[in-house]
Amino acid sequence: MSADESLERQIRFVLEADRLKTVARQSRITDGSRHENSAEHSWHLALMAMALAGHAPPGTDLGRVMAMLVVHDMVEIDAGDLFLYADSAALARQEEAERAAADRIFALLPEPQAAQVRALWDEFEERRTPEARFARALDRLQPMLLNMRTGGGTWVAHDVPLEQVLTKVTLIEDGSASLGRHAREMIAAAVEQGFLGPVAGPPAG
Amino acid sequence: MSADESLERQIRFVLEADRLKTVARQSRITDGSRHENSAEHSWHLALMAMALAGHAPPGTDLGRVMAMLVVHDMVEIDAGDLFLYADSAALARQEEAERAAADRIFALLPEPQAAQVRALWDEFEERRTPEARFARALDRLQPMLLNMRTGGGTWVAHDVPLEQVLTKVTLIEDGSASLGRHAREMIAAAVEQGFLGPVAGPPAG
Repeated sequence: MSADESLERQIRFVLEADRLKTVARQSRITDGSRHENSAEHSWHLALMAMALAGHAPPGTDLGRVMAMLVVHDMVEIDAGDLFLYADSAALARQEEAERAAADRIFALLPEPQAAQVRALWDEFEERRTPEARFARALDRLQPMLLNMRTGGGTWVAHDVPLEQVLTKVTLIEDGSASLGRHAREMIAAAVEQGFLGPVAGPPAG
Repeated sequence: MSADESLERQIRFVLEADRLKTVARQSRITDGSRHENSAEHSWHLALMAMALAGHAPPGTDLGRVMAMLVVHDMVEIDAGDLFLYADSAALARQEEAERAAADRIFALLPEPQAAQVRALWDEFEERRTPEARFARALDRLQPMLLNMRTGGGTWVAHDVPLEQVLTKVTLIEDGSASLGRHAREMIAAAVEQGFLGPVAGPPAG
């Protein structure tokens, strides 16, 4: 492939990426004015990787964490964003759609770059490396921070049971012990403020 | 400072950063539906650093380029975004407002992190290192790509003279010879499509 053709493909990839700015997430931005989109969410996570770098396990390659966070949601250009607390059938369909999207989108890049960026996305999805686990922890922590700032946010809007939120905290603990602790404290505060509570049983009597 | 207090400050910084999602730029996203905001713009630049890494001078530290791009616009939370082709008095006022914003915003972080992130922002502004020059080149190239996809975009909306656009191309050439060449080709195409043209003289007669 000529250098010109290679650059042309890279530019096509960059322009295709622009569409991520139109993918809406469930979370609202902190002023509550609108839903967050997946492009600005990805930026926020990359910034969190810098700000919270000290909470990653020693030896974590933060450059790779940031690179992973920058590309991790690109598949939503085709697959859309699925709410974190969707049911398992919806999650399985989403996984398939995201793999197909990864096949299409990362292949816009010339080789060997296409394979390298795809490998980053696979690494994030597989959650085996400390880098992927820390990146995933940030991806789980960020919507909690937004929920706390927007009167309970998606927890309240979707009436998410406390139990479900707590199962997601293990993903934060897997990536960072100190951020996991912080998430548990935040959830305790959310319960206290009435943003979260166990599912109520049927009324007595 | 205790570990808890340190984390609390980092989280405050992360939440303050969220406001960058509400800072509108002049450029429109590629589907033309709305103006781009500075948070998603910063994400787009970090992605460009990955996709166009091969166009940076050999030895460029791409992790530092990405980190710089992630924080470079944060000062706009206080200072707002100034149009690239504003006059020199407005540019001078903006520079002062951005320095004051950097003083406030990066100091939300605990030390020594505050100084480290501030140093990244200073490095971007000063444009002395290859990393800062490459980052700046991407920051100049990206709105051109959007303009080409949105019928001339800000060039047409603000009737920007060709000469002014060409002076900005030198900033791209400073960071990357091959991206500079690509920008010149793009500008030639923009002239051909009528998106850009020299300022017309007074009508004859």
